[in-house]
Amino acid sequence: MSREEMDAIAKGRLVGIAREWYEQMRDGIVPFVRLPTRTKQNIEYDDESEVWKYGDKESTRAATTEKSAVHLLKMAYVIGFLKQQLVENRSSTLRELYYISEGWRRAKFSAQDESNLLVEDLEIITDVQREAFHLRPEEDGASIFGPLRIRETTRRGVREMHCQEDVGEAGYPIPNNVDTLDFVDHDAKFVIAIETGGMYARLMENGFDEEYGAILVHLKGQPARSTRRVLRRLNDSLDLPVVVFTDGDPWSYRIYASVAYGSIKSAHMSELLATPQAQFVGVQP
Amino acid sequence: MSREEMDAIAKGRLVGIAREWYEQMRDGIVPFVRLPTRTKQNIEYDDESEVWKYGDKESTRAATTEKSAVHLLKMAYVIGFLKQQLVENRSSTLRELYYISEGWRRAKFSAQDESNLLVEDLEIITDVQREAFHLRPEEDGASIFGPLRIRETTRRGVREMHCQEDVGEAGYPIPNNVDTLDFVDHDAKFVIAIETGGMYARLMENGFDEEYGAILVHLKGQPARSTRRVLRRLNDSLDLPVVVFTDGDPWSYRIYASVAYGSIKSAHMSELLATPQAQFVGVQP
Repeated sequence: MSREEMDAIAKGRLVGIAREWYEQMRDGIVPFVRLPTRTKQNIEYDDESEVWKYGDKESTRAATTEKSAVHLLKMAYVIGFLKQQLVENRSSTLRELYYISEGWRRAKFSAQDESNLLVEDLEIITDVQREAFHLRPEEDGASIFGPLRIRETTRRGVREMHCQEDVGEAGYPIPNNVDTLDFVDHDAKFVIAIETGGMYARLMENGFDEEYGAILVHLKGQPARSTRRVLRRLNDSLDLPVVVFTDGDPWSYRIYASVAYGSIKSAHMSELLATPQAQFVGVQP
Repeated sequence: MSREEMDAIAKGRLVGIAREWYEQMRDGIVPFVRLPTRTKQNIEYDDESEVWKYGDKESTRAATTEKSAVHLLKMAYVIGFLKQQLVENRSSTLRELYYISEGWRRAKFSAQDESNLLVEDLEIITDVQREAFHLRPEEDGASIFGPLRIRETTRRGVREMHCQEDVGEAGYPIPNNVDTLDFVDHDAKFVIAIETGGMYARLMENGFDEEYGAILVHLKGQPARSTRRVLRRLNDSLDLPVVVFTDGDPWSYRIYASVAYGSIKSAHMSELLATPQAQFVGVQP
């Protein structure tokens, strides 16, 4: 799908939410949105895809209380902001969105967590990822180093890079939107996802990637979406095993789980983000 | 200077500290180290270099109290660790050093801030940067995007990259040790150092670098040493003006100050890290 088509779909679906409110009001219904309940109680393991997804429980947010009405007001402001951004072919960060809301009076968010959550709600309702809204996190993803040649479609044209021969010691930095990435070819036997920068650099230093045919992926602690998406795609499309190499403490297991099973906050995208075949290096429960 | 020569100097100076303690004890003197006092009260503006440096006040740490003796013990352990690392041609992160100290019984650090501070003390005493100890921060520096061709000497050989044509949308990631970087050529009129990832991406998106001949450098908030070092070198060796583009709040001015004047913690390296000619975009006091 081209960028223009994707933009049109994203805009259409966002505006569709507001249109539905309009129709609800016209029909004498108090406007509302309906969403899967996004809590631990409503997370279910899906046998087929082998990842955790939202279950059947739904929550309805209707403008029958002041609190819910303000919530829909905030959503309306965000929809308006994103629509304008798509029209002008601009992009912004989740952080900027939060700061911009400072000027929205009653629709102002109290913290960035709140606006992030609302953006995820919009992803669920529209079935479109926030990248298609031209929204990205403040930081990009982590880095790749190993026997892999990638092709990235950038705003300045197509760039082809080998992740050992064409990069510096910091490796190839994973862009925010990895849908622009293609894997051209590789000479790898497996992918090793590494929790800390120290170990990532150490394995590079020791030539582990060359000796064992390993693609090193730095997770940078709890991995960003783009990093998880790359791991899933390396596993899926290149059929490469993924192992997760951590510090081995309880927090590490949580990092592994977010790679292998997904997370509650992004359970609507588990099939895109999680790599159920990923293996943990170390003692498992 | 070659890497091997640098390693030899670093090792020699580190071991020299321990040798001095040995000689002090042999001569019946309680062992001690002497350092410039690293507080705001001992920071002075140096007219010639136009940066802030440590003044004349010195602090002596002698093993006459238990506290100071333990401090020297910790220093001895760190020296031993770094020496071994240089002998084995390995590297590690500041974070790893702190965790490794967990096994040093009484020489264990209580927090990473403490071990970081001690490493800076060693930099001051040896007059060698921690990069020469093969110590680096957990995270690398930020990114560059613009009309600049760089040459990086990596462990895998020399890599030449143009920071617009040979990089993806995330830009060229600044490596931890920027002494391995050479600027080959450029087509720029100035350097713009940008506080937030959002603005960095926006300027890239709008083609600001092409239209105005600007090298975009993402500061990632409070800039890492490697980022400040790159800015200084772009200013010094390419004679390019540096402007600092921030959010414009009081915290931003602090970020600007660390680029232009240096910081108290790294005042021993201000001449390498600070860019006195850097200009602030916005209203100045």
